[in-house]
Amino acid sequence: MSKKSFQDYYPDSLSHCYGCGALNEKGLQIQSYWDGDESIARFSPKDYHLAFPGYVYGGLIASLIDCHCVGTAAAAAYRHEERAPGTKPSFRYVTASLQVDYIKPTPLGPQIEIRAAVEEIKGKKTIITATVKAGPEISARGRVVAVRIPDHLLPDE
Amino acid sequence: MSKKSFQDYYPDSLSHCYGCGALNEKGLQIQSYWDGDESIARFSPKDYHLAFPGYVYGGLIASLIDCHCVGTAAAAAYRHEERAPGTKPSFRYVTASLQVDYIKPTPLGPQIEIRAAVEEIKGKKTIITATVKAGPEISARGRVVAVRIPDHLLPDE
Repeated sequence: MSKKSFQDYYPDSLSHCYGCGALNEKGLQIQSYWDGDESIARFSPKDYHLAFPGYVYGGLIASLIDCHCVGTAAAAAYRHEERAPGTKPSFRYVTASLQVDYIKPTPLGPQIEIRAAVEEIKGKKTIITATVKAGPEISARGRVVAVRIPDHLLPDE
Repeated sequence: MSKKSFQDYYPDSLSHCYGCGALNEKGLQIQSYWDGDESIARFSPKDYHLAFPGYVYGGLIASLIDCHCVGTAAAAAYRHEERAPGTKPSFRYVTASLQVDYIKPTPLGPQIEIRAAVEEIKGKKTIITATVKAGPEISARGRVVAVRIPDHLLPDE
């Protein structure tokens, strides 16, 4: 596992996201890493992140999938171009669509593990699939279509 | 527009959801109402609910769609059975799947409006579609498959 997360390579001007921005003090600060060909993020939910007593809130699961997959799309773009993470121009993606299938309730308590894999990179569009579990069983599956932000729309770094 | 929200009819034992539970003090406390055949929820995001400076976090949009649609599924079940909201047995739904298409960035600042409509009620499954906007233009569309929680899994009220 790398020492720096995908999000650590985001320029400061793009590090304010509620889900994964290192500079958003009130946010979730999701951190994603390569683990071989997959990417992984781990998140410890707060006791108030519940849907029903004992189970994780589905909107949090959607948020974790979203940010982890968009981060994976950016990291995969560097790999795809065989460039070192963080080199210019920066890769940064936004979500075009998000699909989450809730297979079973996710228990609230254990650390949540989100794993993602690249399904396809095609031009500016990258499709990422993800699984979520908190314990031994996968409780949700996600699929994100991420689109690269055009350079001219990126804030100055 | 009704005076009581859909969520006001949830029993206390099911009112802890981070997205829409009236008893979750740290949650979003989404409130949904009928507006004719559609349902509507309005939400004022905090300044830290951003994706990039000036735009709403996509995970928040997914959360708003999720809770508003699940609430609409419950309210629609009462209408479908021609029962008054809140009468026993309680209707309460969970999300089986959530699809969000992000059409354009949602500006951060104006109140967000989420509108939903029932696409189909079939047994314990209800499909709800939704639109999101903060300003004049629709910025996201959602589709939720909601499933009724079996009575025997509901906590005692």
